[in-house]
Amino acid sequence: MKAGVHMKLGEMLGFRFKETPSDCQIASHILTLRGGYIKNVGNGIFSLYPPGKRIAMKIEKILREEMDAIGGQEILLPVAMPASLWKESGRWDAVGSELMRMKDRSGADMVLGMTHEEAVVHLCRDAAQSYQNYPFMVYQIQTKFRDEPRARGGLIRVREFTMKDGYSFHASFEDLGEYYKKCHQAYVNIFRRCGIGNRVVSVKADSGMMGGKIAEEFMLLADIGEDSLAICTACDFRSNMEAAECVVENAPYEDSPLVKIPTPGIKTIEDLAQFCDITAEQTCKAVLYQRNATDEFVVIFIRGDLEVNETKLSNLLGGEAHPAADANESFPCGFIGPVGLNLPKGAVVIYDRSLQNAGNLVTGACEEGYHYKGFTPARDVPWIAYSEIAKIPEGGLCPQCGKAAIRLKRGVEVGHIFQLGTKYTQAMGMTYLDRDGTEQVPVMGCYGIGVGRLIACVCEANRDDYGPIWPMSVAPWQVHICAIRAENEEVNQTSNELYTSLQKAGIEVLFDDRKVSPGFMFSDADLLGVPLRAIVSPKTLARGVVELKTRDKSIQKDIALDGALDEIVALVKEMMEGTA
Amino acid sequence: MKAGVHMKLGEMLGFRFKETPSDCQIASHILTLRGGYIKNVGNGIFSLYPPGKRIAMKIEKILREEMDAIGGQEILLPVAMPASLWKESGRWDAVGSELMRMKDRSGADMVLGMTHEEAVVHLCRDAAQSYQNYPFMVYQIQTKFRDEPRARGGLIRVREFTMKDGYSFHASFEDLGEYYKKCHQAYVNIFRRCGIGNRVVSVKADSGMMGGKIAEEFMLLADIGEDSLAICTACDFRSNMEAAECVVENAPYEDSPLVKIPTPGIKTIEDLAQFCDITAEQTCKAVLYQRNATDEFVVIFIRGDLEVNETKLSNLLGGEAHPAADANESFPCGFIGPVGLNLPKGAVVIYDRSLQNAGNLVTGACEEGYHYKGFTPARDVPWIAYSEIAKIPEGGLCPQCGKAAIRLKRGVEVGHIFQLGTKYTQAMGMTYLDRDGTEQVPVMGCYGIGVGRLIACVCEANRDDYGPIWPMSVAPWQVHICAIRAENEEVNQTSNELYTSLQKAGIEVLFDDRKVSPGFMFSDADLLGVPLRAIVSPKTLARGVVELKTRDKSIQKDIALDGALDEIVALVKEMMEGTA
Repeated sequence: MKAGVHMKLGEMLGFRFKETPSDCQIASHILTLRGGYIKNVGNGIFSLYPPGKRIAMKIEKILREEMDAIGGQEILLPVAMPASLWKESGRWDAVGSELMRMKDRSGADMVLGMTHEEAVVHLCRDAAQSYQNYPFMVYQIQTKFRDEPRARGGLIRVREFTMKDGYSFHASFEDLGEYYKKCHQAYVNIFRRCGIGNRVVSVKADSGMMGGKIAEEFMLLADIGEDSLAICTACDFRSNMEAAECVVENAPYEDSPLVKIPTPGIKTIEDLAQFCDITAEQTCKAVLYQRNATDEFVVIFIRGDLEVNETKLSNLLGGEAHPAADANESFPCGFIGPVGLNLPKGAVVIYDRSLQNAGNLVTGACEEGYHYKGFTPARDVPWIAYSEIAKIPEGGLCPQCGKAAIRLKRGVEVGHIFQLGTKYTQAMGMTYLDRDGTEQVPVMGCYGIGVGRLIACVCEANRDDYGPIWPMSVAPWQVHICAIRAENEEVNQTSNELYTSLQKAGIEVLFDDRKVSPGFMFSDADLLGVPLRAIVSPKTLARGVVELKTRDKSIQKDIALDGALDEIVALVKEMMEGTA
Repeated sequence: MKAGVHMKLGEMLGFRFKETPSDCQIASHILTLRGGYIKNVGNGIFSLYPPGKRIAMKIEKILREEMDAIGGQEILLPVAMPASLWKESGRWDAVGSELMRMKDRSGADMVLGMTHEEAVVHLCRDAAQSYQNYPFMVYQIQTKFRDEPRARGGLIRVREFTMKDGYSFHASFEDLGEYYKKCHQAYVNIFRRCGIGNRVVSVKADSGMMGGKIAEEFMLLADIGEDSLAICTACDFRSNMEAAECVVENAPYEDSPLVKIPTPGIKTIEDLAQFCDITAEQTCKAVLYQRNATDEFVVIFIRGDLEVNETKLSNLLGGEAHPAADANESFPCGFIGPVGLNLPKGAVVIYDRSLQNAGNLVTGACEEGYHYKGFTPARDVPWIAYSEIAKIPEGGLCPQCGKAAIRLKRGVEVGHIFQLGTKYTQAMGMTYLDRDGTEQVPVMGCYGIGVGRLIACVCEANRDDYGPIWPMSVAPWQVHICAIRAENEEVNQTSNELYTSLQKAGIEVLFDDRKVSPGFMFSDADLLGVPLRAIVSPKTLARGVVELKTRDKSIQKDIALDGALDEIVALVKEMMEGTA
């Protein structure tokens, strides 16, 4: 007997229920709770019941195999680390309250790892001091903690999670670039093997607090996603909206003088466009932010039809900012424009690139109840510099092929790969001697996949109203035997024989011989989502068969008792190969 | 290519060195550092290099197999938990500063799991509400953190560690007792399979902060051990000294009157015995402690030849105590005795059972420079109660067979099993309905093995001066090919062919084809401790052979090139079975 690998449902820890739990909107959250996979322990913290843990282990096996196949060496880094490492890299100060900080009994500062660049550089810097040691990649599968302000959606966004994080080290950016491609392919393999290959795309990403320039996210396309993606329908451009360049064309304009016009009570771009009988594109709007750190104002001028991309804004400012609150004392709100603007102390002005080459616009006159018409930046404020901080819009121009073919979609990040460069190796003094004996700083890549979120995404992409439909490759068990009326001697004997012989054949079997109604049994089986179901009942035995059903309903047939074992084994194999 | 499973030594992360690292006394600590298995990240916190991680995974596989074999279901509980769970059980207050506490961004109290009784009861209490759900056992392999004041010895005593912790739930103490025996056997299997079966014994243990009555520790017998074990050479009694009952016989005595005698400057039992020409057994000594919580004094009277067992003392007091400092203002130190003692406020007196039936003793007269002789507790202090708080001495009486056959040995705890009873289920309101519909509280057992400490113990028990001698079952690789003078075309070709064919045969191979001297190569191989070594060199090829050597030197022979593959595969299998 190997509990876990094979087991009777009646002996398994966990329970299943019909009701939708309160405060759950996302299908995978509802189904993983209803099916007895996870249990909430605290805000964004979960325990896994046996079926959840078994899926996690299947995924971890796939992660290991794909990492090993590209030369990855498995290591283990600590969950709790001395703060000194994070001070070395500078992230002790740079990262906000999502980094969990604590003091040990001696009063020393410590952190919980939310990512492990510091720890991996610490591990590798003594061990890779010669060019002959490069390149190499190490990875771990380890618990991480991120004190996430908005934990939600079950395993979709949590505070504690198991993550596969890999780190590669190279003697050149070229070599990193080559390896990065291999890792990209390994990630494609992983998502295919987890049964979501057709729903996951890689998109250009913002590298955020990680540093580095080139980064891609793997996104499960799904309406529940928190990320907006810009996808070109005319070429292969795909980007997280955070990182997508917004390219605009401005219509030709007539040179008109700057004229102040009364616009009593007109405070929104919509009202203004209607009042002046123009489109929003023919206006220049002001958007007010404040720096999180100092509350100093940031005034952004942008074409009236566009929105500010807050990620680009943070990158430009070198720190986060939030939409301004209570700016009325400092600004003539609703009537702010580039001409005649008085700035409060510490405030800065940013012009979005959408205003470049635009002209004859309507904009605020910095006076309550008045706007200017005929505003032409190149003529009226010729000294300004432009930045690129607009959100790419639906139907916008593709920054790659130039066609107006951008579609916005929602996605859930299931993987992230970064070309970090030398940010951590430089800061933490990791060097090696090259062939000439010269000291060099290695360049790094890093590659992450969260195991729990991947479970949720596989469920999100593979389910019906009754439960998850686990792909054979990650299913908690491969075959689910339902013995209906197991008190019937023949049912009992046949189902037990099948259970035993499937185990001997190396199949992972869940066996339900509880004395419950068929309806109850099948609704549990639907929630457990085992891809292949074998039903033994007095009726099937009267026909001399076992009824075989796939959870996705693509196959439903009787198979003769004689050849049942072989047929099931063959079908499991075939279904495994479906994602191989 | 599967990095990790098979790899070239030249590509492996890590490095090996000859020098004994400073501040290292324990062989396993020295060898795991010198061999590139572990790296210290902070006080009691380590990262694992690939060979260390591979050994950990081998051990974890054995743990899983043995837990599954006794019906264990694998789950996952969180590392970081809301403090509310620990408040429910009462351990938030009861456990000291080894429990790592922290506050999250919302100011909520959290803890890092040092053990998971609270979390497992939280997971199971909804899921096991009927007697039909019992018994069951769940386990996890997860990171734990214990803010240990005395981290030492590499992986022997750390603050962060990976642990296999299992928890069983039962409807009766009898059922727990039966299951506990199975788990004991599984632990015996685990240590045998890890190659230390002949060095590990189970001993009766104190259950400490865990609660419950029956507990056993599995101890690796080793001089470096921090635990003292009392082992009877006449019967099968084995106990941690902390938990061993101290049984004494008192010699018959003559009834003598209580007489005060001058003993100027005589403050130790040794001096007193010499001064009075008696043995230490004929004295009654006072030992002073203070409660950690309040600094209130605890006066212990005990037969002069015995020592106080601080674990028994803590259990008796219901809290920890430390040897008293600066007691001179409160007591006539050196002359304290049971007769005429004035106690400071809050102080308590404890009499050890060794004084029961003793008489005609010399003891302090509570007056500087004076002792009493003829002290007979039953006559002079007839109202007192006795407690059992003495350390069992070397050569002492066995509490089981009664023979004076106790030997004291040192041991390292490698596993611990407890019959917890209802401590946690009761406190946390876990109940089930029995067959009669009556609400009952389930009883629990818990079962722990630390993975890292087990690695250190396997090394401690299997090594020579040159490195670890890993048992085949847990070795990072099964075969280590040394290609000496790999620049030689024939050596290069033959060793590469062997490397490839061993991989195909499913053997885990480490391949050293670095251009280094044989001495350098062999000292690295010794430090990596792979149990079977295949040496290919121009000399062996001239003889038409591969040289085969076991790391423990029991086998050293030439094998013909033709049959080398088969012979190596057979030997690996045989060596695997050695601990099976």
